[in-house]
Amino acid sequence: MAPRMTVVTLGVTELPRARAFYVEGLGFRASTASNEHITFLDAGGVVLSLYGRAALAEDACVPPGAGFGGIALAWNVASEAEVDASLARAVAAGARLLKPAQRVFWGGYSGYFADPDGHPWEVAFNPHWQLDADGGVVFPA
Amino acid sequence: MAPRMTVVTLGVTELPRARAFYVEGLGFRASTASNEHITFLDAGGVVLSLYGRAALAEDACVPPGAGFGGIALAWNVASEAEVDASLARAVAAGARLLKPAQRVFWGGYSGYFADPDGHPWEVAFNPHWQLDADGGVVFPA
Repeated sequence: MAPRMTVVTLGVTELPRARAFYVEGLGFRASTASNEHITFLDAGGVVLSLYGRAALAEDACVPPGAGFGGIALAWNVASEAEVDASLARAVAAGARLLKPAQRVFWGGYSGYFADPDGHPWEVAFNPHWQLDADGGVVFPA
Repeated sequence: MAPRMTVVTLGVTELPRARAFYVEGLGFRASTASNEHITFLDAGGVVLSLYGRAALAEDACVPPGAGFGGIALAWNVASEAEVDASLARAVAAGARLLKPAQRVFWGGYSGYFADPDGHPWEVAFNPHWQLDADGGVVFPA
């Protein structure tokens, strides 16, 4: 079996705030398997999980850390207009705009927001990549 | 269109080392669209991207940071034996074992490794979750 990334867990300081941002704010669907300690979101081909940051560090046996850890998430969309609309939606939901949408060196159009816990998300239109009917990236083999 | 997480980018300090770990070590498939600055890996349902850590921070307009940033990745497998085998494979490829595989409070069996740049990965068997034929998690709606 080939290796996969099945889940990405974001450590959060206030789960209700994070859940509201992702579910009501951005429109992610939460699983009924979620409970008061963890929320599972359907992020396309992968599960996006929200869990207490201190508990996550403890579970992974790593020091709690602070700030940017060198991981950025991305949400590819189908047009420049969708980038603008998705960034605006995130900001309306309480995100902080890190980088306004702009034409970028690799030929696309993108901007970044930080979720309420500071996790950076790029929203991008990449004219070189194809999206499938569900909005997933067709892996450029 | 529902929101999605399409790409997860890991900031790395030495791209050839990181690429060797993920491709030769763990068996991820690299895209021919990769170049000397970035590697795109097929992580099943999502693209795992390897990119310079400083360049990633600059692109996202965030301070470079250090250590754990509150994000953990996970690789769900089909059995406890596969957890053991996958952790052993990661360690043989140069990962650091953060947490030996063990029965955990939520009813599964899991351990953690850190990739060569310190990014934490859980390898888990979750008896409550179903995997599809490709090894993806069937979202527990």
